Amino acid sequence: MARMSGITYPPNLTEELVTHLITEVKDWQSTHGSLLKLVRTENEHTVLCRPIGVSLFPSLFPKACFEEAVQIQTIYNKLYVAISEDAQWLFDVLQDLIKEDYLASTLWKIHTRVDHEGTVQDLTLGIFRSDYMLDSSYEGPTSMKQVEFNTFSCAGGTHGNRTSEMHRHFQRSGVYDIESSIEALSAAHGAYGPPRGEDLIQTCILIVVQPYNINICDERPIEYGLWESTPPIPAYRVCFGEEILASTSLTASKQLLYHPQGRSSTPLEVSVVYMRAGYDAEEYDDYGYRSRFQLEQSQAIKCPSILCHLATFKKVQQALAMPGALLRFLPPDEAARVARTFAPLYPLDTSQLGLQAREVACDPGAVVDYVLKPSLEGGGHNVYRSDIPCALERIPKDSWHQYILMRLMRPPPLQNILMSHQGVYQGLVISELGIFGACLWRRNSSVGSRESKGLYNEPDLIMNRNAGWSFKTKRQDVNEMSVVKGYGCFDSPLLLDFASST
Amino acid sequence: MARMSGITYPPNLTEELVTHLITEVKDWQSTHGSLLKLVRTENEHTVLCRPIGVSLFPSLFPKACFEEAVQIQTIYNKLYVAISEDAQWLFDVLQDLIKEDYLASTLWKIHTRVDHEGTVQDLTLGIFRSDYMLDSSYEGPTSMKQVEFNTFSCAGGTHGNRTSEMHRHFQRSGVYDIESSIEALSAAHGAYGPPRGEDLIQTCILIVVQPYNINICDERPIEYGLWESTPPIPAYRVCFGEEILASTSLTASKQLLYHPQGRSSTPLEVSVVYMRAGYDAEEYDDYGYRSRFQLEQSQAIKCPSILCHLATFKKVQQALAMPGALLRFLPPDEAARVARTFAPLYPLDTSQLGLQAREVACDPGAVVDYVLKPSLEGGGHNVYRSDIPCALERIPKDSWHQYILMRLMRPPPLQNILMSHQGVYQGLVISELGIFGACLWRRNSSVGSRESKGLYNEPDLIMNRNAGWSFKTKRQDVNEMSVVKGYGCFDSPLLLDFASST
Repeated sequence: MARMSGITYPPNLTEELVTHLITEVKDWQSTHGSLLKLVRTENEHTVLCRPIGVSLFPSLFPKACFEEAVQIQTIYNKLYVAISEDAQWLFDVLQDLIKEDYLASTLWKIHTRVDHEGTVQDLTLGIFRSDYMLDSSYEGPTSMKQVEFNTFSCAGGTHGNRTSEMHRHFQRSGVYDIESSIEALSAAHGAYGPPRGEDLIQTCILIVVQPYNINICDERPIEYGLWESTPPIPAYRVCFGEEILASTSLTASKQLLYHPQGRSSTPLEVSVVYMRAGYDAEEYDDYGYRSRFQLEQSQAIKCPSILCHLATFKKVQQALAMPGALLRFLPPDEAARVARTFAPLYPLDTSQLGLQAREVACDPGAVVDYVLKPSLEGGGHNVYRSDIPCALERIPKDSWHQYILMRLMRPPPLQNILMSHQGVYQGLVISELGIFGACLWRRNSSVGSRESKGLYNEPDLIMNRNAGWSFKTKRQDVNEMSVVKGYGCFDSPLLLDFASST
Repeated sequence: MARMSGITYPPNLTEELVTHLITEVKDWQSTHGSLLKLVRTENEHTVLCRPIGVSLFPSLFPKACFEEAVQIQTIYNKLYVAISEDAQWLFDVLQDLIKEDYLASTLWKIHTRVDHEGTVQDLTLGIFRSDYMLDSSYEGPTSMKQVEFNTFSCAGGTHGNRTSEMHRHFQRSGVYDIESSIEALSAAHGAYGPPRGEDLIQTCILIVVQPYNINICDERPIEYGLWESTPPIPAYRVCFGEEILASTSLTASKQLLYHPQGRSSTPLEVSVVYMRAGYDAEEYDDYGYRSRFQLEQSQAIKCPSILCHLATFKKVQQALAMPGALLRFLPPDEAARVARTFAPLYPLDTSQLGLQAREVACDPGAVVDYVLKPSLEGGGHNVYRSDIPCALERIPKDSWHQYILMRLMRPPPLQNILMSHQGVYQGLVISELGIFGACLWRRNSSVGSRESKGLYNEPDLIMNRNAGWSFKTKRQDVNEMSVVKGYGCFDSPLLLDFASST
């Protein structure tokens, strides 16, 4: 068996050299925008920043796994495009959540209202990120399993890029090309075409963000990159909710207009709405609801659409892991390839499989290999290993179906040095690889009327490609990968060839 | 007469729009390393940074003045190269200071020791910066006068570049190419050639810095740029004083070796010593003295040499302003062109001109147009206008010759908005343009033996070119341009054509 243990990496360093290196790293980060903004310190004229967590060395990663993750991304893009165009299937999978979960029901309500009024834009843009971890809990060589798939507000691209530049500077090794979300947004902007409204001379991209964002160094470069295109693409950053309602309007034919704040000039017509906000239930007060509805019903190309947003719920990930489920969306060979990246994943409902999973979840001996996840959008709120039985005791049994149970990966024992505002850590680490995908597709004309027959229809993809990667690493004894909290650190993979000795 | 007043610039903005713009600026700065490092907050694993002072808009500047400043730089380079090769003239000009001023006497002592032992490197690198302000106190169109000329530790190139990128982002206007110090250092590194020592396989550049440097975002990019050259040029940052002595050594044939800290590998041979420290008298304790001596006597190309360093003393600037002085160093046409950029400048010694200047300095009516400057290296410690008589009363009359008196510029009344950690200021501003020059020259074989006959000899220049610019702006009612203190702000010039109506 080819294994990754037994390698002395990173090299043994004197304490003096580690001190030297961390000084170098802090200066590099300050100079290159590898920072978090401390939004609470912001006043009119200044604000404090500090370096984001990073690893001091690239972490080891098997080359074959990395390459497979990159290659399979366009298939994953296709899969989630197909899901996003299959409202009936999504409803079937999410119906329990739609009844009970505020965010799911809100999004579904907006979708059905827009659908009822008639959609006016048949293009959708997707900027996706599929997250993987290494797993050595099965026989054979170390493999790579998917942690989750994100269709909404996929972050980390800029920081990943910067960290790999930094490692390149310090090590002169491991050069990877990174494509960016900028090209995807440019493509969608181009596909929208010239302004449709009379008197409007320009189109623009709207980047919808949360206020008080600590992570501006990840988001802002996308905006700056659009302005730096040839010719420049106007891109405006607007806060979700009240500011969207104040600064945008819909024409009778549902063109979305953006009125630049405080300026008396002609409004711009919005070509693409890029969502980096609207994923927390708390954001959907009356302003939030109305602003998402306004965006969704407009002619602007949405990145992503609400259906595509709903596809990021964990419940969807679990439903896809059911035998045969992938065949609805992918041809058999691609379905098999995708299935190989799935970790064992179970519903916690009252189906036969769900009941078996409930048994595992309540068994203190068996549950130590599992994580309990809310079947909702986004990360967080996970319960790990032996904490699961207690956690379930506090949840009414008729809400258990809102969770899924996932077998934990057993990553190989790798070493690195991590530095964040939490401190410097040297020891065992676990990495997570995120592969970005970008795709632009045309709404399938059969949407809504399509019956749930499990037949595969090729989606109408105008663009389908890779868009870079991110790579995060945390200490092994911490469950959370949160970079903002200082546990997770941006990193880059040092690709190794492991001779297979099967 | 062509004047710059009467233009509404920057445009009138609502308070709302200013608020929007300053938020944009802070985020742009955080993302692009336009920051100061708060060195007192640094611990092992983190450090805080905050945006450096910048103007919200480019400031107006006459195109003709900017172009003349750029074009004259290679002549200024030649002038200061010639001065740096004329030890006798420098001694004549500085002899009073060498007797009494600690820094001047220390530098001169190191120079004469090295000269006595025999110099082993006849190449010198210069990275210079000539600073100008606009002046409308004379008849005719607004002109541009030199504030000072710097041969040592010329900073601000990186921040100037970043600020002009920022203004370009916000305004899409005013594109200028910026050459950098990196190319000058690369050229000197190349001119040094391969390692001379046996067993040495690599040469490197040593960047000599001060500890606890708040301005890493200006210095570090030079180092990173050298590493990013093709092929990479190893560049190491070492603190002046003790660390130089601990990490460098001289071979018998005076090659300077650098021993990378804590690493057991072969030392590198230093090709170029780039000084960004050693300009404060306080740095010259025993360690400081010995480290500067070690660097100066080595085979490494110095940027700059001690003679070149001495040429940056204000006394030299004043001596050059004396009638005919320039003709020692430049042909008549170039001397005339340089002289046009001189503001009236007087010694405060017991010469006839000095006695006249003493009268002006003690006359409360006349002195309001003047600034009193110590005739030393670097900025600071200036006394302005009506404060001069009182200040002179506190200085023993036999030390007055250590000062020079300079006529103040009367910059045209221009408006801008400045933001720094001091706050946001909107109102009248004064800008200072710094033009960088880079030159590499070979020691004139007649040096030392050359007699002071006032004859012009062309220096042996291997490289002589422009190397970008910096542009700083402060509020009109503040005398200091200090960016670190939050008064001066980085800025970029918006070049305007003023039709001459003479």
